[in-house]
Amino acid sequence: MQTPPPRCGLQSSTLLGMISVFGHLNPDTDAVTAALVYAHLLSRSGTPATAYRLGDLNLETAYVLREAGLDAPELLFSLPAGSLVALVDHNESAQSLPNLAELDVRYVVDHHKLGDLTTSQPASLRFEPLGCTATLLLKLHREAGLSIEPVDARLLLSAILSDTLHFRSPTTTVADRDAAAFLAPIAGIDDVAGYAMQMFAAKSNLGDIAADKLLKMDYKVFPFGTQTWGIGVVETTNPAYVFGRQAELLSAMQAEKAAAQLDGVLLGVVDILNETNRMLVPSETEAGVVQAAFGVETQGGLADLGQLISRKKQIIPALEAYFST
Amino acid sequence: MQTPPPRCGLQSSTLLGMISVFGHLNPDTDAVTAALVYAHLLSRSGTPATAYRLGDLNLETAYVLREAGLDAPELLFSLPAGSLVALVDHNESAQSLPNLAELDVRYVVDHHKLGDLTTSQPASLRFEPLGCTATLLLKLHREAGLSIEPVDARLLLSAILSDTLHFRSPTTTVADRDAAAFLAPIAGIDDVAGYAMQMFAAKSNLGDIAADKLLKMDYKVFPFGTQTWGIGVVETTNPAYVFGRQAELLSAMQAEKAAAQLDGVLLGVVDILNETNRMLVPSETEAGVVQAAFGVETQGGLADLGQLISRKKQIIPALEAYFST
Repeated sequence: MQTPPPRCGLQSSTLLGMISVFGHLNPDTDAVTAALVYAHLLSRSGTPATAYRLGDLNLETAYVLREAGLDAPELLFSLPAGSLVALVDHNESAQSLPNLAELDVRYVVDHHKLGDLTTSQPASLRFEPLGCTATLLLKLHREAGLSIEPVDARLLLSAILSDTLHFRSPTTTVADRDAAAFLAPIAGIDDVAGYAMQMFAAKSNLGDIAADKLLKMDYKVFPFGTQTWGIGVVETTNPAYVFGRQAELLSAMQAEKAAAQLDGVLLGVVDILNETNRMLVPSETEAGVVQAAFGVETQGGLADLGQLISRKKQIIPALEAYFST
Repeated sequence: MQTPPPRCGLQSSTLLGMISVFGHLNPDTDAVTAALVYAHLLSRSGTPATAYRLGDLNLETAYVLREAGLDAPELLFSLPAGSLVALVDHNESAQSLPNLAELDVRYVVDHHKLGDLTTSQPASLRFEPLGCTATLLLKLHREAGLSIEPVDARLLLSAILSDTLHFRSPTTTVADRDAAAFLAPIAGIDDVAGYAMQMFAAKSNLGDIAADKLLKMDYKVFPFGTQTWGIGVVETTNPAYVFGRQAELLSAMQAEKAAAQLDGVLLGVVDILNETNRMLVPSETEAGVVQAAFGVETQGGLADLGQLISRKKQIIPALEAYFST
């Protein structure tokens, strides 16, 4: 295991002039590793940058960083207005720091649709419709003529395996597969399938996690026209565990809906190995929308979405289409 | 003079599935040439694309295309909802087709700040803070491993000279200069300074153009908070001609303000060779804003903005700062 590189010696004070790099709230492996690798890339290119995270590590990301011998990036709650920032793996204000509109966004590297982001001046923005931010970050290294260091290769490979569910997700592109094949030997990971299984097992090892934390592990808030919904996903190799806690989870969803004044909350439970999605549906409101948007009936608080396992590519577009009519 | 390449054999019907590529309303040389070169690049990369323009050619662009032996791209007024589009040299709805929000934006190549653009799904977006879209297009050719054809090199070089006023504008970057130096020999243009002077002379040869057309030659509408302003620029080697028509122009500005229900209209008259900007100010309303935003007094309908010659980098940011306080 390597010693963490000096870029992870994080500062407790934020310097104006130093670029702060972070992924979305409720960070997943792509959000955290993209911040680390992009901050490193910017710094190597002459733009000093520091990686942060906007929330607790999930179990998979904690495993990835532990295996890489790295500390987690520092947790960030706020930045002063005018701070220079680089956004990775997100661009919408609902998924970022609360005062994003006051920050000076200089860089974005993302693979999501463009939401409500604006910049106060011309900036460097890179969006590509890929399975993972990490695949785009590999491309940026090549364009900059920089080799990928082994620890960065491990982080990028982990993010690709995570975001594509080891190439099972319909968001997977040829570029994601090529990137993973290129990165694995540099990362020193011979058995990619075995490593992916270990990552997914770590993510599925949920123990006695509180239901509200389980709901929020991979959870994003989306505006749909005049409505605002919270959509969570639990990707697991052990869906039986999650369904065993269904009553608790449905209560936690109701509580979150009230506390955050949302119009609806859904939680997809994705069986990674069988590539299926059964969704927890907390009330008649959500059941009606799920029926209308997906043609799927809710029974006993559960809607079987079959192979619609991608929130980004399948769930959100269907909900957007429904709410825009 | 070369025969126009087949990519300029424009279709009269727009095919869904074919990408339509266009720059901003009131197109300038960068907007028109970027559409031509990017449509060509997309097509060479396996994505069939057609270039369009959203308005009449200005005199400089007409000169550039004539010298290149090319026809103008077809004029575009509208596209059916859902059409696939690539935006070049702009991203804000006020500068694009009226139903931009209904179009399926798949690609953007731009060097302006990010405005109100959103995409309905993940797309390929490239923004860099450069002097010209053309400089970014050269980079995209290199990344795609494609050589620049001579006619494209001529178009890109022309755009760089136009947008940077032959490197006089404060928006000019090292990358713009490097791109021009790389492109000139491929374009077969030995005397770059002489060619730039011919472009600027063509642009300044305004003859008996109607005052409302002169106002609109390089004119963009900008939202500032709750207000909407129209800001035109005349870049000329012969400012005396423009000031000789000052009374007509001030009337045309008043008429446009009323017709388009704008809160203010300004017209900067940029002396290309001396790198100065004197602005036509049609009423007390605009005079008050110019005084507050730039600390410059208006006398006889004119405000002397000195060396503030860049709308993008100097004029708009100052107005935004004023209206945001």
